[in-house]
Amino acid sequence: MTRYEPADSFETPRFSGVRTFMRLPNTQDLENADAAVVGAPFDTGATFRAGARFGPEGIRSMSHLLRRYNPSQEIGIFDHLSVIDYGDVPVVPGYIEASYESIQKGLEPIHRAGVVPIVLGGDHSIALPELRAAAAVHGPLALVQFDSHPDTWDAYFGQKHTHGTPFRRAVEEGLLRPERSIQVGMRGSIYDERDWDDARAMGFDLVPTDAVRKIGIEEIISRIRERVDDAKVYVSFDVDFVDPAFAPGTGTPEIGGFTSREAQEFVRGLAELNIVGCDVVEVYPAYDPAQVTALLAANIAHEFLSLIAIQKAGG
Amino acid sequence: MTRYEPADSFETPRFSGVRTFMRLPNTQDLENADAAVVGAPFDTGATFRAGARFGPEGIRSMSHLLRRYNPSQEIGIFDHLSVIDYGDVPVVPGYIEASYESIQKGLEPIHRAGVVPIVLGGDHSIALPELRAAAAVHGPLALVQFDSHPDTWDAYFGQKHTHGTPFRRAVEEGLLRPERSIQVGMRGSIYDERDWDDARAMGFDLVPTDAVRKIGIEEIISRIRERVDDAKVYVSFDVDFVDPAFAPGTGTPEIGGFTSREAQEFVRGLAELNIVGCDVVEVYPAYDPAQVTALLAANIAHEFLSLIAIQKAGG
Amino acid sequence: MTRYEPADSFETPRFSGVRTFMRLPNTQDLENADAAVVGAPFDTGATFRAGARFGPEGIRSMSHLLRRYNPSQEIGIFDHLSVIDYGDVPVVPGYIEASYESIQKGLEPIHRAGVVPIVLGGDHSIALPELRAAAAVHGPLALVQFDSHPDTWDAYFGQKHTHGTPFRRAVEEGLLRPERSIQVGMRGSIYDERDWDDARAMGFDLVPTDAVRKIGIEEIISRIRERVDDAKVYVSFDVDFVDPAFAPGTGTPEIGGFTSREAQEFVRGLAELNIVGCDVVEVYPAYDPAQVTALLAANIAHEFLSLIAIQKAGG
Amino acid sequence: MTRYEPADSFETPRFSGVRTFMRLPNTQDLENADAAVVGAPFDTGATFRAGARFGPEGIRSMSHLLRRYNPSQEIGIFDHLSVIDYGDVPVVPGYIEASYESIQKGLEPIHRAGVVPIVLGGDHSIALPELRAAAAVHGPLALVQFDSHPDTWDAYFGQKHTHGTPFRRAVEEGLLRPERSIQVGMRGSIYDERDWDDARAMGFDLVPTDAVRKIGIEEIISRIRERVDDAKVYVSFDVDFVDPAFAPGTGTPEIGGFTSREAQEFVRGLAELNIVGCDVVEVYPAYDPAQVTALLAANIAHEFLSLIAIQKAGG
Amino acid sequence: MTRYEPADSFETPRFSGVRTFMRLPNTQDLENADAAVVGAPFDTGATFRAGARFGPEGIRSMSHLLRRYNPSQEIGIFDHLSVIDYGDVPVVPGYIEASYESIQKGLEPIHRAGVVPIVLGGDHSIALPELRAAAAVHGPLALVQFDSHPDTWDAYFGQKHTHGTPFRRAVEEGLLRPERSIQVGMRGSIYDERDWDDARAMGFDLVPTDAVRKIGIEEIISRIRERVDDAKVYVSFDVDFVDPAFAPGTGTPEIGGFTSREAQEFVRGLAELNIVGCDVVEVYPAYDPAQVTALLAANIAHEFLSLIAIQKAGG
Amino acid sequence: MTRYEPADSFETPRFSGVRTFMRLPNTQDLENADAAVVGAPFDTGATFRAGARFGPEGIRSMSHLLRRYNPSQEIGIFDHLSVIDYGDVPVVPGYIEASYESIQKGLEPIHRAGVVPIVLGGDHSIALPELRAAAAVHGPLALVQFDSHPDTWDAYFGQKHTHGTPFRRAVEEGLLRPERSIQVGMRGSIYDERDWDDARAMGFDLVPTDAVRKIGIEEIISRIRERVDDAKVYVSFDVDFVDPAFAPGTGTPEIGGFTSREAQEFVRGLAELNIVGCDVVEVYPAYDPAQVTALLAANIAHEFLSLIAIQKAGG
Repeated sequence: MTRYEPADSFETPRFSGVRTFMRLPNTQDLENADAAVVGAPFDTGATFRAGARFGPEGIRSMSHLLRRYNPSQEIGIFDHLSVIDYGDVPVVPGYIEASYESIQKGLEPIHRAGVVPIVLGGDHSIALPELRAAAAVHGPLALVQFDSHPDTWDAYFGQKHTHGTPFRRAVEEGLLRPERSIQVGMRGSIYDERDWDDARAMGFDLVPTDAVRKIGIEEIISRIRERVDDAKVYVSFDVDFVDPAFAPGTGTPEIGGFTSREAQEFVRGLAELNIVGCDVVEVYPAYDPAQVTALLAANIAHEFLSLIAIQKAGG
Repeated sequence: MTRYEPADSFETPRFSGVRTFMRLPNTQDLENADAAVVGAPFDTGATFRAGARFGPEGIRSMSHLLRRYNPSQEIGIFDHLSVIDYGDVPVVPGYIEASYESIQKGLEPIHRAGVVPIVLGGDHSIALPELRAAAAVHGPLALVQFDSHPDTWDAYFGQKHTHGTPFRRAVEEGLLRPERSIQVGMRGSIYDERDWDDARAMGFDLVPTDAVRKIGIEEIISRIRERVDDAKVYVSFDVDFVDPAFAPGTGTPEIGGFTSREAQEFVRGLAELNIVGCDVVEVYPAYDPAQVTALLAANIAHEFLSLIAIQKAGG
Repeated sequence: MTRYEPADSFETPRFSGVRTFMRLPNTQDLENADAAVVGAPFDTGATFRAGARFGPEGIRSMSHLLRRYNPSQEIGIFDHLSVIDYGDVPVVPGYIEASYESIQKGLEPIHRAGVVPIVLGGDHSIALPELRAAAAVHGPLALVQFDSHPDTWDAYFGQKHTHGTPFRRAVEEGLLRPERSIQVGMRGSIYDERDWDDARAMGFDLVPTDAVRKIGIEEIISRIRERVDDAKVYVSFDVDFVDPAFAPGTGTPEIGGFTSREAQEFVRGLAELNIVGCDVVEVYPAYDPAQVTALLAANIAHEFLSLIAIQKAGG
Repeated sequence: MTRYEPADSFETPRFSGVRTFMRLPNTQDLENADAAVVGAPFDTGATFRAGARFGPEGIRSMSHLLRRYNPSQEIGIFDHLSVIDYGDVPVVPGYIEASYESIQKGLEPIHRAGVVPIVLGGDHSIALPELRAAAAVHGPLALVQFDSHPDTWDAYFGQKHTHGTPFRRAVEEGLLRPERSIQVGMRGSIYDERDWDDARAMGFDLVPTDAVRKIGIEEIISRIRERVDDAKVYVSFDVDFVDPAFAPGTGTPEIGGFTSREAQEFVRGLAELNIVGCDVVEVYPAYDPAQVTALLAANIAHEFLSLIAIQKAGG
Repeated sequence: MTRYEPADSFETPRFSGVRTFMRLPNTQDLENADAAVVGAPFDTGATFRAGARFGPEGIRSMSHLLRRYNPSQEIGIFDHLSVIDYGDVPVVPGYIEASYESIQKGLEPIHRAGVVPIVLGGDHSIALPELRAAAAVHGPLALVQFDSHPDTWDAYFGQKHTHGTPFRRAVEEGLLRPERSIQVGMRGSIYDERDWDDARAMGFDLVPTDAVRKIGIEEIISRIRERVDDAKVYVSFDVDFVDPAFAPGTGTPEIGGFTSREAQEFVRGLAELNIVGCDVVEVYPAYDPAQVTALLAANIAHEFLSLIAIQKAGG
Repeated sequence: MTRYEPADSFETPRFSGVRTFMRLPNTQDLENADAAVVGAPFDTGATFRAGARFGPEGIRSMSHLLRRYNPSQEIGIFDHLSVIDYGDVPVVPGYIEASYESIQKGLEPIHRAGVVPIVLGGDHSIALPELRAAAAVHGPLALVQFDSHPDTWDAYFGQKHTHGTPFRRAVEEGLLRPERSIQVGMRGSIYDERDWDDARAMGFDLVPTDAVRKIGIEEIISRIRERVDDAKVYVSFDVDFVDPAFAPGTGTPEIGGFTSREAQEFVRGLAELNIVGCDVVEVYPAYDPAQVTALLAANIAHEFLSLIAIQKAGG
């Protein structure tokens, strides 16, 4: 059996070679993979800045800094996992519904093959086809969403699909189990005082940044773990969860956010959950002059791989 | 009668005040205007880079450098014209057909009022609703297009509307008089050797950059003037007509282009044509770190105003 | 009675339209306004970097991300306030005393109309004419200053007016009530060990960052509230109060500063004080490539509006 | 037989997928290739700016804008050629002699397979191992060098290998036929009036920019063609040949250079020469904020492919 | 006698050492110098962008690329000249008249010592104290000004001193011999059709860019030489003379300008004029992300040194 | 006796003059100095990004913001110390062993003169010649290293010298006393779980960021002080110790790092240790668009000067 792992950075320098995630092989051989990093370069759903279509390129570029072993989790990722860079799913820029179909169709075979996708966005509107693909295989899912916005608005400009609406649509379509789902990090100004209550009314546990600050991160991690329990879970990480100091290159930044270390703590706290898919979204390289946002996103994807390796190691 | 003109830069500095085009009043009072600068912050049609939605902001910002008198044309613009900054027409990001309707609906009243719109893009897909609005009032139009691409492809990803297709659609919809229309500046690699012939088959006179270099700019200007003759004409200026050295902040740059001075020469050569509308499109501020592209576009709009002033003065 | 509020971002996208603060109407109709956002694009007082003249443009641009409701303060700003973008007060670049007169003359009518100005700087030297205008109407004022420098130096290069001297001048001119005033956040290297003691000798309570770290933010907020008590107060926020990671685009950055969230906590702690004016200054867009500084400043202005709304709601 | 060509940009957008040159397959299957694009991410030879190691990444990124047909040469590249992205040859950052060995070893098999390499630099020091590899297979070669410096200095800091010395070394090693070689574009200040005469003394025909301006580009192209005649020729294009307006992102820019169009004319003028290898070097993405340098380099590589296609078509 | 020349770039790399112009000694030893490079980091006179105070730093930084020999002029600068980096003259930011005094006082001793100053700006307002210093020693001077604006406006905002007024003031003060003076390159929009005629009425020969294009550069050079004849001449080079593609980092850029090569041609055409001082001004590093403007300015200063060396060699 | 101190920023503005560290005299007069700031513009050892050769320039530029008195340490640096900017030690770009010799030879005389060097890097590979120079004079040294990587790998690409290997080499060469040495801040992914244990096996006390977070900064400072005790100590500060939000412009950034304030706390905690040399390394200006990394590094150097002043004051 073939096992896929990164090129050896003691042999060839990390700045060399075609940019795949972590210098992994670019292949669609799902049979020999445990996890697949997949780009979804779609940004037609964005309501303020544009350019998340270059997110996968930016993340792959900075992922070359990543190494095999995660000392905080004490796990050698590639001792447990065969991982591939699957390339990008096809998208249709300017056409959100056609893209939704194409993204879903691109991701479903990965789930069917028992491979865990780590999707690199793209704006957050891609969460809907991601969940459609995952739910088609795994049934309704728990959701852990790290984000400064719940993305449960009903419509913008009279249109149902933007990066502000995917999770409302997902609930409407029965893709999620809201009672097992949790949204963490909401903050910033909102349109209406009901904005967050709407998400709660859909069944989500919505935890604003203010609440995290009052209650403490460890406590919130426990709350996430209890909420999700043993459900199959999708983890969605919008980089605007962290403060713009740590992630300037995003579409709708909100000040007053988390540090990169706090973000790591949250994600590391998901160890042993039953993760069937995950994403890191809303990276806009044109607004990321020193590439710190792309580096953060690459690291979050690396933490996801670590979680999957822990699952595998423990399984 | 109210006359609209820029704030006096000897009274208050050009870097002050809310950013309207050339520090003109931001009003929709069409009755007292001869020309209206209008933003169309739409970029859902873009096939490579994204972010032309910030084009109008970028152009308005740099337009504060512009002054009232055009010495190359020997015309004091505001001695002849009352000009307003009309604001932006509404768009629906992510939805190209809804935006087309909205842009057309936004522009039609301007034409009906006998006011000449100078549209600030936005990606070049907005040319279609611009032409729909103009043709609804003025009937089929001649087109003078400065561009490195003809934008007459049939479809991308199976979709009829992108910034690569508006002029084919416009011909199909009978909005243009191809026999009075001319496209200047095509260059760069193309998908197929028939790409340009297709435009010619639709009736356009397509003049590649190579041909301009061989024939000379003055000669081409004469050819434009003869072609258009006394027809009502729409002038569309894609900033990728000039070389990326002069306009880096654009969506699909092509090297080997014209200088900013050559661009001015071309536009100045249109004096006394019967212009009913014009645009300058494809400015992407996120790729324009020193704002030279926005400055170029602002100057092109200034040349358009000069042309309209000359028409008015001569009328 | 006319009420002024932002354009509806579900109707037209936030990236559209002429850039006013929060997409508010640009008008000088003080009769129908409770608060007025005013630019003061002046930077002749700067002693290191230059370019705060583009601060108001930068802040207005990013303010389009802001929404109507502040969930941390549980206040719907425009349920209580009518707010306008007043435009910029005239300045005379290169001439500090002429500008001081012009700025003062521009701001006084706002105070006289009972409207609370939120001034967007400009370098911090504008605080002097701001205070002159405010004190001319309201009498001597308490000051709450968030800043890494006290700006109470006597002179630079033998000149009395720079962005390092306004608060000494204000005390000398009797515009302030130092015994009700407090300066928070001083840090970084200083010219002389007496620099801060000088401010104290003028009567200010000067609280260095080191002291805040020792004592705690909540405690300092109480100290501010006790100090100001029921005095009429002017709040001045220099973005170098926060760390350069969160606000790189400023004139004299000092490392070791506060986070954006801590800045929000401080400002939110001023609820129910009797605020008659406020500013956010020292934004330099040319040093703010990812616009995070402008976004922070826009948010601080939004917090100011929230405070004024709370006053109004409670009044 | 497998034929390699770019992905279809009407099927999937050009901004998608792992970044290979022109969206070509990343493979080392030399048997089925006519030309191979190869990165040499080496910059240890640079004497001023650093960072050409990211040149191949930058060029590949912008090459996604390129299309299959070159209308100026009237050639459909992939109608005649099967082309691969070979990846990068291994380099040893910080160790110039070890890297030279590794680069040579990486390139030789390409030549032996009868495949023409188009090398993406890297600083210009890589020309030496390129020529070693080429000459090992083809014997001593003619050289056509477009550059603002002859790169024939003897030593810097007492060291024989930098990006200022490769062509002197190549002559010393007998890799070149100086009497069939020509260097075009030299300009800018030099260390000593003998600098250029040294190159001439080695046998090169050195044509300064001043001479090109006096004589004319067409004439110089004829001179190149006569000089090279039917010799096997290596073409080396340093992007500092063009003016920094057109290629700011380079290591030792010299003002007063050629335009991008003039560069195209020169390269197009090489049609039907017997090219056995070529490179485009000295792209420094960290100094290329709007990516125009990378775009220029990608286009030059595209012109090289066109030349090879013409050879093949005519062969 | 001590002779000052640059550090040897074959001994230590050009990127090393404290940044002086061309790696020259930083000294004020006028006795042993023929020419002195002097910074005037003053930008209080700027009417649009700000930040020319960092111009000398930016130019010095890129000047490290320059070498000793100018092949276009066939002159080894330091074979004929001893040159120093004199440091910066003191300025008083925010106070234009105090700065004028200080700049004049700083420059006069250089002229008195028979040393030719090459002043690095700073905004163009510094030309007035430069000319005061020069005329105090040499009497009224001829002026050769390369610029897109004549800078002969009367006043801005009621103030006599800005970067738009120095040459009118200079004429009023009798510092210039207008009948021996010439201004080349004017273009762009102007406030009033009389703007340029005013300069002519003061006695200047004002040559717009349009005229240069019509007449030809060589012809204009002859016109300059005839105009100046054997008068003592001051040469002032505003980088906005060239197009923003070649010099984006300037205060009031105007499109349609000259190339860097054309700028070199003009300056080289001044050989053997009797130059007593010169400057290169309006470099704004914050708007010069790839440093091409600073590089251009450094090269212009290098051409000035070449002219002085030619004078000396021929003397 | 001459005493060297910064230029007076109340006399001439901080943005003026040739860029030396803190506007100190640029001299090599060791006799009259207590401390010397020295650049080591070497980056041939870097394994990912390139460009630390411009680190000293960048740090010097931003150091102009620094003032004489450190209020957190209550020390007036120049009341106790005479400090010089020594310039840069010669390096040989592209040749690591030749550079090591040259750097060592450049630094040794400083140590011999009893002057404490504060070295501005350069990549971290320069630590080896720094330690060779220091140990040659002072014997084996304690090391306090702030860094996210231990830099104790054995080899990259079969080569012994890179910025990932200096401290292993230093131990092998007997330059360090590992039992008195401590490495603080390690984090991020590693190649192998043994990476950190290797450093411990060499005798270092390696304290990961995770451990600091668990134990607390104050506690770790005590641990450092106990470990070093009264040994002669070298302090090495890699800016990647702090988070990329605070120091984006570095070679191998790792998220999850310390804040700038925490970095200050650590360095301030070293007061009264017996420091014989120190450095701040890995500043890459090309990746530092808002100069915050350079500012941070300049401040760390300022803290080092404060420590040396405290030593001197207490001695």
